[in-house]
Formats: sequence, C-alpha cells, structure tokens
Amino acid sequence: MPSAEERPVSPVERRVVERVRTGRPGDLVVRIHRPKFAGFRRAGPGRLEASAELERPRGPAGMLWRLLVGQPIPSALEHQERLSKKKALAVFSSDALSSVAYSPQEMLTVLLAAGTAALIWSLPLSFAIVLLLAIVVTSYRQTIYAYPSGGGSYIVARANLGETPGLVAAAALMVGYVLTVSVSIASAVDQFVSAVPLLLPFRVLLGILAVAMVTIANLRGIRESGNIFAAPTYVFLAAMYGLIAAGLALLASGQLVVPPPEYPAVEEGTEPLTPFLLLRAFAIGSAVMTGTEAISNGIPAFKPPESRNAARTLMAMGTILATMFLGLAVLFVSGPVIPSRDETVISQLARAVFGTGPLYYLVQASAVLILVLAANTAYADFPRLASLLARDNYAPHQLAFRGERLAFSNGIILLGIVSGLLIFLFGGSTGALLPLYAVSVFTAFTLSQAGMVQHWREVRGPLWHLKAVVNGIGATATGLVTVIAAVTNFMNPELPIVPGLPIGWGTWIVLLLVPALIALCKKIHRHYDEAALATALPAHPEVERPLKTVVVVPVAQLNRPTVLALRYAKTLSDDVTAVHVASDPATAEAIEKAWPEWGQGVPLTIIESPYRSLTGPLLQYLQELKRAQNADILTVVLPEYVPDAWWEHALHGQSAQFLKLALLFKPGYVVTSVPCHEEPAARNQPAPNPPPQR
Amino acid sequence: MPSAEERPVSPVERRVVERVRTGRPGDLVVRIHRPKFAGFRRAGPGRLEASAELERPRGPAGMLWRLLVGQPIPSALEHQERLSKKKALAVFSSDALSSVAYSPQEMLTVLLAAGTAALIWSLPLSFAIVLLLAIVVTSYRQTIYAYPSGGGSYIVARANLGETPGLVAAAALMVGYVLTVSVSIASAVDQFVSAVPLLLPFRVLLGILAVAMVTIANLRGIRESGNIFAAPTYVFLAAMYGLIAAGLALLASGQLVVPPPEYPAVEEGTEPLTPFLLLRAFAIGSAVMTGTEAISNGIPAFKPPESRNAARTLMAMGTILATMFLGLAVLFVSGPVIPSRDETVISQLARAVFGTGPLYYLVQASAVLILVLAANTAYADFPRLASLLARDNYAPHQLAFRGERLAFSNGIILLGIVSGLLIFLFGGSTGALLPLYAVSVFTAFTLSQAGMVQHWREVRGPLWHLKAVVNGIGATATGLVTVIAAVTNFMNPELPIVPGLPIGWGTWIVLLLVPALIALCKKIHRHYDEAALATALPAHPEVERPLKTVVVVPVAQLNRPTVLALRYAKTLSDDVTAVHVASDPATAEAIEKAWPEWGQGVPLTIIESPYRSLTGPLLQYLQELKRAQNADILTVVLPEYVPDAWWEHALHGQSAQFLKLALLFKPGYVVTSVPCHEEPAARNQPAPNPPPQR
Repeated sequence: MPSAEERPVSPVERRVVERVRTGRPGDLVVRIHRPKFAGFRRAGPGRLEASAELERPRGPAGMLWRLLVGQPIPSALEHQERLSKKKALAVFSSDALSSVAYSPQEMLTVLLAAGTAALIWSLPLSFAIVLLLAIVVTSYRQTIYAYPSGGGSYIVARANLGETPGLVAAAALMVGYVLTVSVSIASAVDQFVSAVPLLLPFRVLLGILAVAMVTIANLRGIRESGNIFAAPTYVFLAAMYGLIAAGLALLASGQLVVPPPEYPAVEEGTEPLTPFLLLRAFAIGSAVMTGTEAISNGIPAFKPPESRNAARTLMAMGTILATMFLGLAVLFVSGPVIPSRDETVISQLARAVFGTGPLYYLVQASAVLILVLAANTAYADFPRLASLLARDNYAPHQLAFRGERLAFSNGIILLGIVSGLLIFLFGGSTGALLPLYAVSVFTAFTLSQAGMVQHWREVRGPLWHLKAVVNGIGATATGLVTVIAAVTNFMNPELPIVPGLPIGWGTWIVLLLVPALIALCKKIHRHYDEAALATALPAHPEVERPLKTVVVVPVAQLNRPTVLALRYAKTLSDDVTAVHVASDPATAEAIEKAWPEWGQGVPLTIIESPYRSLTGPLLQYLQELKRAQNADILTVVLPEYVPDAWWEHALHGQSAQFLKLALLFKPGYVVTSVPCHEEPAARNQPAPNPPPQR
Repeated sequence: MPSAEERPVSPVERRVVERVRTGRPGDLVVRIHRPKFAGFRRAGPGRLEASAELERPRGPAGMLWRLLVGQPIPSALEHQERLSKKKALAVFSSDALSSVAYSPQEMLTVLLAAGTAALIWSLPLSFAIVLLLAIVVTSYRQTIYAYPSGGGSYIVARANLGETPGLVAAAALMVGYVLTVSVSIASAVDQFVSAVPLLLPFRVLLGILAVAMVTIANLRGIRESGNIFAAPTYVFLAAMYGLIAAGLALLASGQLVVPPPEYPAVEEGTEPLTPFLLLRAFAIGSAVMTGTEAISNGIPAFKPPESRNAARTLMAMGTILATMFLGLAVLFVSGPVIPSRDETVISQLARAVFGTGPLYYLVQASAVLILVLAANTAYADFPRLASLLARDNYAPHQLAFRGERLAFSNGIILLGIVSGLLIFLFGGSTGALLPLYAVSVFTAFTLSQAGMVQHWREVRGPLWHLKAVVNGIGATATGLVTVIAAVTNFMNPELPIVPGLPIGWGTWIVLLLVPALIALCKKIHRHYDEAALATALPAHPEVERPLKTVVVVPVAQLNRPTVLALRYAKTLSDDVTAVHVASDPATAEAIEKAWPEWGQGVPLTIIESPYRSLTGPLLQYLQELKRAQNADILTVVLPEYVPDAWWEHALHGQSAQFLKLALLFKPGYVVTSVPCHEEPAARNQPAPNPPPQR
C-alpha cells in the first residue's frame, strides 16, 4: 500500500508559473504563485473549507436554482434561535388547537341524523374525548423525557417494535399529513364562507386555490419562525376564550338564543340513535386531538432544559385544548346549535353571541388563519419524515439530502397535489375527510405508545412498571379509537364514489394505502441493499490496464455547435470519428462538401438511410465501431445548442436524452453533450498565454 | 481549400492489422482486413448504407424503445398499398358519415326547446344543410384537382393567403381534431347507453375510458389499413340504409309509431321559435359535414389517377351523406321522434322500426363502431398536421422527425388527455361540444375555400373565373356558418362553468384558443429564425488553437462506479482531479484513507462543507479551478450506477441532471456521466491483444 507521501498533488497545492512580459525588450518576469480559490479557505494539504458566502445563490444558474426552489426552508428543528415556551406553544399547537374548529361540528352533524334531541349526547361524548386527550397527553409526556432528541411515532415504533410497525407508523403519518392539509383547508373554507355566504357555491374551488397558495408559499420559502405563528395563535386563543366567556355569561342570564338554521347539515331523525352512531360521533370528535404529537417531534427546538420545557408546553396545550373543547361543547348543547349545511357551528354561535359585527368577524378570521397555519405545518413535517425514511433506506435517497433543496420542493408539490385532489374528490367536505384523518393519526398514536411500552420493558429504570402502564393505557385507548373510527366509517355511503352505488369514500382508502406504502418502502429498502452489494469494491484492486476509448460525433448539420463538439471531441481522444445519418441526400452532400474546411481533420462517415430512420442505423454503427476498434468505452459527443431563454430549450431536440436512454442498458457507452451558447465558449475565456502588452 | 485527397480516412475504410500466434515457436501470422460493419453495406469511400434489418428494434434498449413507442404508426399516406376507391371511401369517410349519429339529434334538441311543433322545422333546415354540403363538396372537388399531393386547409390557406390565415386554419384544425375525438366518443357513448340503459349513470366515465382505450391502442400501434375500416363502415352503411328503407316502408303503410320518451332532452316550449333559435339549430346540424375534408388530405393514398379517383370518392361520400341525412330527417319528423335525455333519436327510431331485436342491436353496434373509428382518424391527422407545422418551423422540430417515433406518441397522449378532459368538463354532453366542433371545422373550411379563390386568381387556366366563383360561394357559405355557429352558442348558458352563473362552456373557448395557438406558433417560428442565425458558421473558419480542457470527478463515496469514472476520466485528459465535498467527516476520512489504493493516481481535493450543502461549494470549486487552470472547457465526469430494472433508476440521485442544469447557462462546462452496470463494463469486452492460444 503506498504511503501518504505518494499522494498525488491536488490542484489546490499546485504552483502556477506565470511568465509576464512587461513590454520592454528582453524583459520577462516569472511569477510563481498558488491559485486562489475564491470562497474557500485552505484547510490543509489538498483540503479546502467552504465559506458561508457560498450558501447564497449566485449567477444565472443560481438564480434559476432559487427560482426553482425558493429560499431554504428551515424547519423548527434547525432554528438557530431556541424557542421559549410561549413561542413553542404557538409554533407547535396550531394543528391541535385548530381542530376545535371542525371536530365538534362534525360530531354534532353525526348526532343530528338521530334527531335534534340526540345532540345532547355530544356532552358526555366530549367528556369521554377529554379523558382520552388526558391519557394521550400523559402518555406523550413520557415520550418527551425518553426521547429528548425528538420522538416521532416512526422513530419510537421503529426503535422498539421493529421494521414493520415502524413503517406502519410512517405510512399512517404520511397519509395523516396529507389529510392535515385537506381537512384544515376544507374547514378554513367552511369558516370563510360562513362569514361570506356569497362564496358558498365556490367551496371546492376556494379549497383548491387555498392549497395552491400554501403550496406556492412553501415552495418560495416561508419562515416557520415563532413570530409569524405567535400572533395568529394567540389571537385565536383570545377570540375563542372571549367567545366562550361571553357565551357562558349570556347562557347564565338565559339570553343565549341561537336561531335554527334554514338548511340543517343532514336530514334530522333519519337514523336511530344506536350505539354504532354514538361510536361514530365519538371517533369523529376524537379528531380534535390530531396534532398533539407535534411537540414530541420538536423537542430540540426548545430552550434548555428542553425536555422539561417541552413537557410543560404539552401540558399547557392539552389544558387549553380541553377547556376550549368543553366550553364550546356546553354552549353548543345549550344553544342548541344545530349544524347547518351552509354555516359552521362556531360561526352560528359567534353570530348569536356577538351579533354580525367586528367581534364576529374577528372570531371567523382568526379561525381561518389558524387553520391555514395548521395546514402549513404539514409542509414542514412531511419532508422531514421523508428524509428520515430516506436516511433509513426506505425512501429514495434524494429525499435525504438537506443540501439538495429540490427534494423538499418535490415533497411540497406532491403534498399539494394529493391534498388538493382529496378536497376535489370529497367535494370539500370536512366531515367526509375527518374519519380518514382520525384513522391515520390514531394508528400512529397507537404504535408510538405501544413502542413506549416496549421501551420501558427494555430500558427499565425507576418506576418503569408504572410508566409502562401509563403508555399501555394510552396505546389501548388510541388503538380502540382507531378501530372504532375505521369500522364506523368504513364505506361512508354518504359520499358515494359513483352516484347510486353504496360504496363511498370511506376509511378503506387509508386501510388500502397504508399497506401499499409499506410494501413500497420495503421494496425500496431491498433495492438499496442489493445496489450496495453490487457496487461494493473488492478487498484490493486488481491490476487493470488503461481503458481503450473511441469517440464519435454524430453530425446532423454543420453549424457552430457541431464545430465546437468536434473541437471538444479532439481533446478527448486521438480516435475521433464523425458520422452523419443521411435521411436527406441534399444535406449529406452539403456536409460532405464543407467537411474539408470545417471538419477539424476528423474523418467523416456518411450512413445512407433509405428508410429515413435515424436512431436504428446510428445505434448499430456505434455498436459495430466499438466492436471493430476493440474499445472498452465508446463516447458519443453531441452538439447541444443552449438558447438564452429556458422555454426555448423545449424547441431543440433532446437527442442526447434519447440516445442516452437507448444506450443506457448496454455497458460501455457514454453520451456527452457539449453546450454551445450564443457566443462560442472559447472566446469568453482568456487565452492561456496572453499576448505581450505594450 | 484542401482537396478531396486530403480527406481523413473514416474507420469504415481503415485496415486492421491482426497478429495471430498459432502456438508454434516463431510462428506469427499477420492478417490484414477491413472491419465488418454488420447491418450495413459499403457504398463508397467513407459511406455506408443502412440495411432494412436495422428497422426492427433489437436488444434491451430496442425492447425499451418498442415498449415506449409501440409499433410504427403508418398513416394512410405512407401505405405501400394504394387504396382502391371502395377502400378509400371506408378509410376517409368514417368521420363524415358518423356525423349523422349526432347532428340530427342535437338539431332536434335545439328545436324542441320551442315545443314539439317546432320539430317540423328540421326538414327545411336539413334541405338547407344538404345544399351547403353540395357547395362544400363541389368546392373541395376543385381543391383535389388543384393540389394532387394533398391539400389540407393549412397547406392551401398558407400557400395562397399567407402566414396568419394559414396559422388560423392550422389552429382551428388542431382544436377540431381534439373535438373530433371528444364529440365522436361522447356520441358513441350515447349510442351505447341507449342500448344498455343500465350504464346510463356512467356516461362520463365510459367516455373517458373509451378515449383512454383509443389512445392506448394508437400508442401501441393500430394499423389504419383499409381492411380494418372497410367492414365497420360498410356494415354501418347497410344498417343505416336498411333502417331508412324499412322506416319509409312503415311510414308509407302508416305503421310507423315512435312512443314519446319519458324524459325529453329539454323542457318543451321554454323558448320562443325565433330566427336565432333556427340559426342555432342550423349551425349545429351543419356539423354533419365535419370530416368531408379528409379525402382532400389523403389524395396520394389513392390508386392512379389519384385526383380523379379521389374526386369520385368525394362525390360518392357526399351523396351517401346527403341521402342518409335526408332519409333520417324525414323519418324523425314523421315519427315524430322527440329527442330524449336517455336515448338517442337513432336508437328510438331503430327500436320503433325493428323492435328491440338483433337488427336494432346491429344498428346501435355499427353506430358505436363507426364513431370510435371516426375518433381514431384524429389520432393520425393530429400528428400529421403537427409534423407539417414543425417542418415550417411553427411547431417544435421534434414533431417533424418521422424517424423519431416518440414525437408521435407525445401527440397521441396530448390528444387523449385534452379530449378526455373536454368530455369530463362538458359532462359527456355531445350537444354542448358540437357548436365548438362546428366553429373550428368551419373556420378551417372557410380559409381553405378562400385560399382556393386566391389560387385561381394567381394560377388562372381554363375556366378559372368559374372555378373561383365556385370556391368563392363555398368560402362565403362556410364563413357564414362559422359566424352563425360562434354567435348562437357563444356563452352556452345551458352548461354553466359554475352553477348559478350565466357563463357557460361556449364557443368563446375556441375563439380564445385559436389566437393563443397562433401566437405560440409565431413565437416558436421567431425563435427558430434567431437560433439559425446564432448558430450559423462564418464564411470561413478562423485558425483556432486546440481547446484546453480539465477534468473533474466528484466523489461521493468510493465504490465500483466511482472507480470506473476515475479510470474513464484518465482517458480523457492528463489533467484530472477528484473532489469530495465533505458534509460528513467520517466519510471524508474513509475516502482519504482508501485513496492511495483506489484513487487511480488521481489527485484528490477534499472540500469541508460546514453548512452541509453540496451544490454551492462544488459549483464554486469548479468555477475557480477552471479559472485557475485557464481551461476552455471543464468536464465533470460523474459515476452513474445503472440498476437492472427501470423503476430502480428513480432511486439513484439524478445528480448529473442537477449539475448539468446548474451549469447549463455558464459557457465552458460539460457534464458527463459514466454508466456502471452490474458487471464492470471492461470485463464484458475482449482484451485488445488476446493472449496466445495454445
């Protein structure tokens, strides 16, 4: 093995000898220096360190880059600033808190099918849901202490339960993030059109527009800083508590009157009040706790002591969510507020309490805003989970590079398209989307809690039995809700796929999607294992002779790009051939005639193609030439004209891509295209030996 | 200028000297031969001729090619066989003849809005339409003789009226071809569900499925041979004439009874019988002559004398169309057949005449079949027009290469998507699509006839005045129909875009699309002009020094593909540098340690990237290195792992594409990727000097 002394000298260390003539006769100054590498610092032999200034995009390519991917997207995890508890509450709770805007609404709608009298059942159901919330929060509190570097459902389930449960959690979370966007935006639209009934017919359109808006905002780079989140979240809290307080005061004085809606959300009393219906209402109401897991994902963003601060913030969030949910439940039942087809229950209540004045509009506006923020959180969570999966070889590696920002853009666009599509397919109906949301979120909850039980059994430590029991209760309760939500909305006949058929857009979609995603993840994982094996180096290199290469330049016409390609090809090898496939004899004749002047001394072969096809004869010629010359690698050098405007690219043959595709599966071919710009490349460069200056 | 003698020797002519040892001591046989180029015939110095066997795809790349593009798609123009008049009638008339399945239907529906009594007006309107048909056919007959090599509207309008009118015709034709598919398929579905009412709710779905089917059939390659067309067309003719004859016989004996439909197509008598309504019915009925221009496009496919045979076929088609249309009109009025929401008038009539028996099903099946064939014709016409436009620099050049079959596939997919979308947007309503169809087709008719008037004025010849008058009448009549169709259906309030708003999917779409397409064509044309100027060679070459190049191999990890890339890079230049951007210190250390053994003697530079970004530092390094080395062109050689299965490609970084995109707009960079297959490329090749055989 050669020693470090035999290391070849990197260009960073190479000295450049420059001969400068001052112009006076016989006066030649020789300067020796090492080239400067602007933007780098020398960090040792053959070592550079990139400086911070390289992070900002420069030049036209950089501008294109920025245009494509926008500003970098810092997630809360990467914040330079650590979040105070108050800011953290704002950053992490928009998803959870915004749920009160839709969960009670849809729970009441389910009950309404059994008649107005059944609405009273929402009160005991709400108490049950708050109990469940307490269990989930206590359970997640333990996760926060056990995984101080962030304990999302995927991490916890994978670490403790193994591959498949981890992937189930990941797939459920993926589906959940998509539904976070769909549900939050659909509900935001509901709140919006409640205040602006003129726009009622445009529900679906508004929803899709809103998704597009959030998607574009994220593509161009929206900063998830605490400041942006703080205001809307606290305004929403103030508005909600104000509404609840004023409502309760009115109720106490017997003045709370909510006029019944013109069009109730469903036909009243069409279904009997069965336990099945109550379970369905319970499952849908439970969706209020979607988003509670956000804090346990983002612990490193808290100020130290991170875990304690995160745990306290979680408790605060749980308390706020519970009181808001219960306060609203009492008012909805006392009103009673009957869910309407055209107006949300929050809007009805706010109108009854505040009248249609500025306070009413404040309530609605803050609800719309926090729902949009909730949707926005998924745009950070989805790529983050994808990069975790990629790091573990379960997703394409491209998603793992933080540096490759385009990967995030792909995730953002995918999220936007799928959630927009869901809004379209479900006719913008929050109620129909909610069961799917509940199923996916509670699946992840269950696996996360179950993983914690296993964690305690392995790690042990003080009071581990108790801790395992707490998480065990959490897992059981959330598991039960998952099953209830899945079963009671399996076929959702209220939203038929095809009018007249009893098969609707129900939770079966999730139950189909999750295994499909898992299978995909495993297939990807298997591929990466195989690829690593296939590309591994042997223990020691064999002595190998140098590769023998031959270079071919296909010539379609004689112009500047072709001449540049020929000149470039001559630098690659001494064995260069040009070839013209003649589908038109006149062109062939013109090229042959001009060749002695323009051919750069490269021999030209003309292939007459009586059948006018180009690819077939060219491929065959390349193959035969490679065989005849006994070459290891045949390089095809293609001229490529680069127009100034990006759209003009589409107008010039992608022949390099075609040829590359056609040759990709045959070993020993390399396809290179030489870009030719408006001005010849060579002229923009200083000549290697500048002429004497006078 | 060097003489032909100085021509460099092409590899085709080069002699290969092979030294073969027989194994006996001192025995060395030298063989001199010229390499064989299998699949080619030598056709002169430096000249090969491709043989026919190259036309069929071979090897895995060829299989992929075939998988992607299917069989070649011969259009009628390229047939080896010339068509007899009988076959030509079948090939070219499905579009025109199939129109009787929807035009009378929609004309009656428009009239029905003015009450059942208004239906009688369809008789005089039908006579007016037949008169118009006679004018159009006579007019096109002259085109056939004037343009024996094919006189489509675009060719005639461009040659005689200039650029913009030519493009108007082309754009109108493009839109027309899309609508040929939408209308024919929508009507085929109408005919189908008339016979199978069970499928009534799935109209839109069936339409989209049918479009998808025809699209896929065309992608995989459907032969447009006369044989496939002949049977359905003549069965349809027999079925229709049989229906008309039997119907007239029943009518004569007073036995024709058509029961009124349960749900009429529109509410009767909601509109007054105004001239506007009559004009609207007339415009919609005129759509019966869409497709009559097909024969004038395809003259070279006829047996000689081509023009005379084509003209006779056109007359035959016109006569058949007129008699079928009039025969049906008489029966519809006598029935009277009241258009229904759920059943076509043809189906109602056939049921009344034949009963719901085998003959009825034959009528419906033949109608469905000929409508699908009509849609299919657009799949040949659309790419043909696109290639004409590309040849004239008005469309991307990729569409012009007959050899590049992928171009056709793109056109076919585009056609399928847009026409499927139209069916979806218009709810599968033939009636709503028809006015758009009429406007686009009649626009093309008008420009073609107007072009012919100009043609006669320039060419003159015997009786040119008379010929000009004939075409002039044609242009005036079709122009009038265009205006009538556009105005009477401008806003089509019956199909509102948004429920409640009076703006519907009307002819304004066409009037918006056509100028947009023209603007696009002109922009493309301007670009090609500029590009030709920018890439043009000067009068004579300047003496240019050889290009100075430097080669860089970015190393992400040390594996088989990287080692191959390093070995390849060493063949390109003596100045090769490897560079590793270190986002992870452990990987960097491992690479540095293994470098002496595996680095192929190439110097390695390590760039520490504290911000974990890859692209920024790499791009900056390339730029600085190029500057420092004073290179004209810097070549980046990237290792590329090629997995066996195509889908696995998506799992490996497209870093070559990213880097190429980032460097594309800076002159002087070339990005090359070296494919590395499961087994090293070099091992599959015979060694250049085979070892002595014993």
